[in-house]
Amino acid sequence: MSKEGAIREFIEEARKIVGDEFVLTDIEDIYPYAFDAMTAVPHAIPAAVILPGSTEEVSGVVKLANKYKVPIVPRGAGTSLTGAVVPYGNAVVIDLSRMNRVIEINIADEYVIAEAGIRLDDLNAELMKYGFYLPPDPASSSVATLGACIAEDSGGLRGARYGTFRQWVLGLEVVLPTGEVINVGSKCLKHRQGINLVQLFVGHEGLLGIITKAIMRIWPLPEKVVRILVSFPSPEDAARAVAEIKKRRIRPLIMEFLDRKTMDVVESAAGIKLPPGQAMLVIDLEGAPEAMPRYIKIVEEACKACNAVHFEWSDDPVVMEKLYYARRAAYPLSLRTRPKPDCLSEDITVPPSKLPELIKGIYELAKKYKIEHLFVFGHIGDGNVHPQFFVDLSDPEERKRAFEFFKEIMRLAISLGGVVSGEHGIGVIKKEGLVEEYRAKGSEYAIEIIKKIKSVLDPNNILNPGKVV
Amino acid sequence: MSKEGAIREFIEEARKIVGDEFVLTDIEDIYPYAFDAMTAVPHAIPAAVILPGSTEEVSGVVKLANKYKVPIVPRGAGTSLTGAVVPYGNAVVIDLSRMNRVIEINIADEYVIAEAGIRLDDLNAELMKYGFYLPPDPASSSVATLGACIAEDSGGLRGARYGTFRQWVLGLEVVLPTGEVINVGSKCLKHRQGINLVQLFVGHEGLLGIITKAIMRIWPLPEKVVRILVSFPSPEDAARAVAEIKKRRIRPLIMEFLDRKTMDVVESAAGIKLPPGQAMLVIDLEGAPEAMPRYIKIVEEACKACNAVHFEWSDDPVVMEKLYYARRAAYPLSLRTRPKPDCLSEDITVPPSKLPELIKGIYELAKKYKIEHLFVFGHIGDGNVHPQFFVDLSDPEERKRAFEFFKEIMRLAISLGGVVSGEHGIGVIKKEGLVEEYRAKGSEYAIEIIKKIKSVLDPNNILNPGKVV
Repeated sequence: MSKEGAIREFIEEARKIVGDEFVLTDIEDIYPYAFDAMTAVPHAIPAAVILPGSTEEVSGVVKLANKYKVPIVPRGAGTSLTGAVVPYGNAVVIDLSRMNRVIEINIADEYVIAEAGIRLDDLNAELMKYGFYLPPDPASSSVATLGACIAEDSGGLRGARYGTFRQWVLGLEVVLPTGEVINVGSKCLKHRQGINLVQLFVGHEGLLGIITKAIMRIWPLPEKVVRILVSFPSPEDAARAVAEIKKRRIRPLIMEFLDRKTMDVVESAAGIKLPPGQAMLVIDLEGAPEAMPRYIKIVEEACKACNAVHFEWSDDPVVMEKLYYARRAAYPLSLRTRPKPDCLSEDITVPPSKLPELIKGIYELAKKYKIEHLFVFGHIGDGNVHPQFFVDLSDPEERKRAFEFFKEIMRLAISLGGVVSGEHGIGVIKKEGLVEEYRAKGSEYAIEIIKKIKSVLDPNNILNPGKVV
Repeated sequence: MSKEGAIREFIEEARKIVGDEFVLTDIEDIYPYAFDAMTAVPHAIPAAVILPGSTEEVSGVVKLANKYKVPIVPRGAGTSLTGAVVPYGNAVVIDLSRMNRVIEINIADEYVIAEAGIRLDDLNAELMKYGFYLPPDPASSSVATLGACIAEDSGGLRGARYGTFRQWVLGLEVVLPTGEVINVGSKCLKHRQGINLVQLFVGHEGLLGIITKAIMRIWPLPEKVVRILVSFPSPEDAARAVAEIKKRRIRPLIMEFLDRKTMDVVESAAGIKLPPGQAMLVIDLEGAPEAMPRYIKIVEEACKACNAVHFEWSDDPVVMEKLYYARRAAYPLSLRTRPKPDCLSEDITVPPSKLPELIKGIYELAKKYKIEHLFVFGHIGDGNVHPQFFVDLSDPEERKRAFEFFKEIMRLAISLGGVVSGEHGIGVIKKEGLVEEYRAKGSEYAIEIIKKIKSVLDPNNILNPGKVV
């Protein structure tokens, strides 16, 4: 059978499994699925989009895909920043957004069970009714889905203290690439089950299975949060302050960094006034209200030791929102100004003490590659920064420079003992970067191990082919 | 070549790699390696014991093992409780205790790098000089080694708050079953590297590689710890109190449980007085000193709501040690009384709200199977209890009853949504239990996945064969 014929038959049989209305093939319906949130990677229109309503339907569709050797790409909200969910090779997209129920909230046992397609903010809204939440908070949480956040091991601002999704997954229901359904992990706070299959499916980027349900550990909301805004004469001073705070044994809930250029964009686009200095940090402290004055003092001393020029804090919700506005608005406002048509976002991570060198190096590289519109901000508390820059990729010379700059930033991070990705993942845009990272450690064989595991779980290479490795 | 001939040649070549004095073959040297800490599993004398001094030597020996198809078993201190490190089938033991250096302590970047053979308490002694530590605290921490704790994903008392080793591993150097050396993970607090290979080697029980170095996240020592001793009229009331405390959004550092029988052993063997009641909890609260009086009050209210008959607390180190003595001494004192020659220790885990039912069920099963010498204690904060019982395994009828009881406890945990192991692992003693657990979830195929992954990483089945699956 021809490839086109196989896809046609696959689609017809899939209609019988999920129902006609949940198989999309009209171009106006499927066109949005050609992209993820990183517009700099090539897009690809899928052969069809299928919206299953249950685990059984997902399993049925995956078995069909094996029968007809049709590539499939699982998808949540499509907010990945690496091309991870772009359906190359005429693939069929499996959109999990219909599977969005909360199944059980159990406060005494510290877990919530939900379907993979639920939006993160919707899930947290339910949990907050009880004074609990799921701490990781990717910027896209208003649309990002639970299953995709697990598949991408997403992070966010609170990663400074509470890590990424990896730390919060207790159990998973997964449809394997061959269609079998397995439940791994449990509702327990710890379990040993031979090789840990739960963790195998966290951060796998849709290569090894389709997550359909998850059991997540939950945590009490902070007793109290105090927000600090502090600015410094140089980005390096701001980065040094991060290490100084950690040495003093404080573990802030969030530590966010903005460089002056980002601050200027926020000031002019939003008409607000930010403090003087070449960089600022927004720091959230959480803990017992009785101890807050002492914690604030320790942080202030650490910042002063790094030449801080402005230090203010608040626990008033209105003022706190104002202090936070600059960080929250940085990405959308820089996008709105959009000085050039295309935007690339980096995600390198280094040990926090290497941040001053990393940030200095990024500015030097920008000069070398004539990148004018560069904004540096990110989750500096865990050493993860998101340099973001605007270029015109339709200009071949500028395109070449832009991608060289992108690669050189990764090389710089590697040379500082860092990694090419902290939370966005590999997708298609960082495949070479990952190889370089492993090569620098004499560990290219790790790529072979990943390929071997992929091939035994997905013998027909059905699931998200061509990504990561 | 005969199997014996192959082993002889393997040993001769191994001598050239690690040096004569580090290859043990005399019976008085190798006899201690025939056991782990669970004496109820059959023991097996190894063909030899090799003590490599470097990663290169480990790699060389593993390559040799592949050449001669000689099974090898990596070993730390041998304190596993499942038979995980018993060298069945005339295997050769690779003892990593010579590789015990601290390589780097980095406070600003929140990590320590050390060799796999370092003892956990030795590592923590170094970290505590700076006011930091690695939180998980298996009972055997004075001898247990870092690499083995990672391979076993060990837990401990502080697991109630800080989880198991899984949460603290940032990076690993691993000698694969075929002898290649790879570095996975990084010194960064987060990283995305395709499929997460770090987590694949956490809790693998020596099936997939030999961990030679680890990069571990570290954490500030608690600002303050207050210890509470509280007793209840019934074990069920004590278990209910755990859920009540959690609902009130308190997350204690430790929550330990002792039943009356265990309390009695401690009282009579140590000559101390414990409070009245049929069960007790030892609870450590950590946090800001300013908030402690309030936290203690919340815990006291939760305990009173569950009929607590005695409640005391202290932050005086001498009194705290006394309050803790009962829990710490439970295992050694019960072993010292040793009413029967053999001891079996369970490790089932359930969602904490199921603890009352679990504990009640364990006593009922003990009656049914005529197990007289049963002590129930454990890490109740994360739903993990260690019922421990003494029997005479040389009596065939008693042996049958003992292992039936052991199995029935696992079945009870499974029926309550729990797991057969929380932290001890599978080894040889829980292989059937693991199959039953997956079967109960309709997920026996998970065992196939584990086997597939094992076979692609270890094609000659050299490493710790016959364990787990």
